[in-house]
Amino acid sequence: MAVLNSKIMSVKIYIQENRDNFLSELLDLLRIPSVSADPKFKGDVVKASEFVRESLIKAGADNVEVCETAGFPIVYGEKIIDTNAPTVLVYGHYDVQPADPYELWDSPPFEPVIKKTDIHPDGAVFARGSADDKGQFYMHIKAFEAMMQAGELPCNVKFMIEGEEEVGSSHLEIFVKDNKEKLRADAVLISDTSMLSLENPSVTVGLRGLAYMEVEVIGPNKDLHSGTFGGAVANPINTLCRMIASLQDENRRVNIPGFYDKVEDLSTVNREALNKAPFNEEDYKNKLGIAETEGEAGYTTIERTGIRPTLDVNGIWGGYSGEGAKTVLPSKAYAKISMRLVPNQDYGEIAQLFEAYFKSLAPSSVKVKVSTHHGGHPAVVPIDSKAYRAAEAAIMESFGKKAIPTREGGSIPITSLFQKELGVDPILMGFGLDTDAIHSPNEHYGVKNYFKGIETIALFFKYFKEQDA
Amino acid sequence: MAVLNSKIMSVKIYIQENRDNFLSELLDLLRIPSVSADPKFKGDVVKASEFVRESLIKAGADNVEVCETAGFPIVYGEKIIDTNAPTVLVYGHYDVQPADPYELWDSPPFEPVIKKTDIHPDGAVFARGSADDKGQFYMHIKAFEAMMQAGELPCNVKFMIEGEEEVGSSHLEIFVKDNKEKLRADAVLISDTSMLSLENPSVTVGLRGLAYMEVEVIGPNKDLHSGTFGGAVANPINTLCRMIASLQDENRRVNIPGFYDKVEDLSTVNREALNKAPFNEEDYKNKLGIAETEGEAGYTTIERTGIRPTLDVNGIWGGYSGEGAKTVLPSKAYAKISMRLVPNQDYGEIAQLFEAYFKSLAPSSVKVKVSTHHGGHPAVVPIDSKAYRAAEAAIMESFGKKAIPTREGGSIPITSLFQKELGVDPILMGFGLDTDAIHSPNEHYGVKNYFKGIETIALFFKYFKEQDA
Repeated sequence: MAVLNSKIMSVKIYIQENRDNFLSELLDLLRIPSVSADPKFKGDVVKASEFVRESLIKAGADNVEVCETAGFPIVYGEKIIDTNAPTVLVYGHYDVQPADPYELWDSPPFEPVIKKTDIHPDGAVFARGSADDKGQFYMHIKAFEAMMQAGELPCNVKFMIEGEEEVGSSHLEIFVKDNKEKLRADAVLISDTSMLSLENPSVTVGLRGLAYMEVEVIGPNKDLHSGTFGGAVANPINTLCRMIASLQDENRRVNIPGFYDKVEDLSTVNREALNKAPFNEEDYKNKLGIAETEGEAGYTTIERTGIRPTLDVNGIWGGYSGEGAKTVLPSKAYAKISMRLVPNQDYGEIAQLFEAYFKSLAPSSVKVKVSTHHGGHPAVVPIDSKAYRAAEAAIMESFGKKAIPTREGGSIPITSLFQKELGVDPILMGFGLDTDAIHSPNEHYGVKNYFKGIETIALFFKYFKEQDA
Repeated sequence: MAVLNSKIMSVKIYIQENRDNFLSELLDLLRIPSVSADPKFKGDVVKASEFVRESLIKAGADNVEVCETAGFPIVYGEKIIDTNAPTVLVYGHYDVQPADPYELWDSPPFEPVIKKTDIHPDGAVFARGSADDKGQFYMHIKAFEAMMQAGELPCNVKFMIEGEEEVGSSHLEIFVKDNKEKLRADAVLISDTSMLSLENPSVTVGLRGLAYMEVEVIGPNKDLHSGTFGGAVANPINTLCRMIASLQDENRRVNIPGFYDKVEDLSTVNREALNKAPFNEEDYKNKLGIAETEGEAGYTTIERTGIRPTLDVNGIWGGYSGEGAKTVLPSKAYAKISMRLVPNQDYGEIAQLFEAYFKSLAPSSVKVKVSTHHGGHPAVVPIDSKAYRAAEAAIMESFGKKAIPTREGGSIPITSLFQKELGVDPILMGFGLDTDAIHSPNEHYGVKNYFKGIETIALFFKYFKEQDA
């Protein structure tokens, strides 16, 4: 133990001495606009995969390769120290969400700057992808580098960093299925979620799934003058609004037949436990600038974002949106609509139910097209595994507090894939905060979160090895 | 009569001999992108006013001036041949609707081209403003030129061509009030409407009014991640859709309290007369590519567009509309919503009723802003005036058919202004067709309509003078 502790000390010292490098390398990575959803950034996404490859090599990984897929490549690398030692598979993604609307950013999304905020008195890195997920997966490469340099890597490690998480990880499933042996691990460690706060560290043990749809309502074969035709020809925007309004009832329950069929009703005990997480509704409302929260009747905010499925319109457009007034009755109207799913809901089935119901809402005066963007299954992580206990111990040492198990609203489709294909429950040990504005303008990631994360990850390896011993 | 006829003959000959000039001058005017709604075209709108000024001078008008207003100028010109002769005031507008979406135009909107179509075997001019209203008001300048050149202008004529019709004619009212003597006329002649077809010529005797609103629904103070916050924070798009859906009931009647209070119920006789206009519902649907028409229950298509008020969303936007999927819960959502009004509905009052009702629909989880773009009062034109009879006679001579009086869905706010301020009922003798795609991509105006219009306008002057004799 004395030896191990001195080695862990040297890991901490290495991290301390390399703070500037660790940070400036992350800024370099954030300068690459690797937006997987937008074809015009294709070259940049590939560039980011190269960056990851070089980082892994530099950190000391072996067999590093950029694995081509039908989409963007998956970067793999490993360090096998002892075939009898436990193996940790690290997952992350180097692609990022689109950054628009650009005009709402205080600084350009791909020109990272460090600024202090109320929540981050030590500064935060502002850039698209800083928290989701570049800043978070890069912690793992740096923790690995620190352990290597300190001569103390307690477990084998495998890295799998993909470039299509923000567009549904569509080619990862094939890759995982085709490489089960290569990816074999005793734990999967993922940092792509948030914790309650630096004072209340938490580990995510539940994630919602996602079904993301796009709809198009088609009226007349061209834009019409609303004076000449208005009132006699169905307006696709009015129609779309009516159809969207019909998707939920006055209690904000989703009207799609069968939508709730597989949704588990949590026991009172479970719901009470969930609601024990530190949460202040007034603070929540104040931070968001809203007078009231709103959601499914009969559930708390924690329950609404954690254990209940939802339906949100993520985008809508049609007709004239320029300055002034244009009296057009447009030919078409569009919306992007996504549903967050909870355990046992199958996103493929939900997408089908959505399509059938949405089409049933259309009057005969319009035509409707429905397409599915991507989806992901919901996931629940057990808290009685060796890996979970290792995460708890690591957090206890670095934060001085016991981690709170939480359920999070977001989706990491890959979670259930790992459970199914590799037979391993992933540990969702994220270091972001809900206030990081991921998927929004001014996304940022606390500098302290970044370094606390690197330290905690190294401790995870230590405690996972001890659990195994 | 013999002299007059020979003179009218010479008017016809002059038009015939100058076809190419008449057309190429119109194309020059159409090349000026005089979009009044968009500040970036400000210089072009002014340029168009200069073009009108020069055209009037060239055609032989006196006292031509570009009258400045707080907005875009009004071009005035006149020819007083005899203070005892009747005076015709010609109104038109040189501004045009925005041309976007540009990508839906087969040729650039401000690079006019002449193409043949099924409806226009002699060709039509494709350009923004070709029918609304450049092609139509320019006919008056050319008819005037022809009458001048033929030495046969039977009446005094005054031109008032404005540049703000597409944004509500906001400064015309002051101008008209300030210049009642200057504008004094026995008839106001306007070509800014359509006729049923070249085979079924018609004169518009009713126009709907307009109240045009813009609404903004504001949720959280920044865009949020729909996974983390979805289900607990009101989504402004979902909310806006619900609010828009609530504006009309299942019979497509407007739910705004008081909306119908002043709407006149037409007698069965009147409604029967209205429905005698040649109209084929199947053709109408086929041309528009729709399976069914849709509108207020209990009314025909002609009634829905002619005598009933309506509510149309002209534009909606919010959240992500780019390629792929972005899981955003947006901060704001917007819509442009306009209502067409029928006689006795006051657009100012309707705008107020809308605002109050729309705000009442908002849940406490969002904030709402409502603003009024512009409006216009509805108008009805009597068919027993000298001017109407002159129009009928002119159409009978040039088309060989009796004009059908029709009610049109569009709004020319200026109509009721003339009635109120100048005490003259305008004659809405338009030569466009419903298929001209005004306010839409690929707006066009038939070459035959253009020349038939010029000829008919000259005949109107002849018959109006005869009516007066």
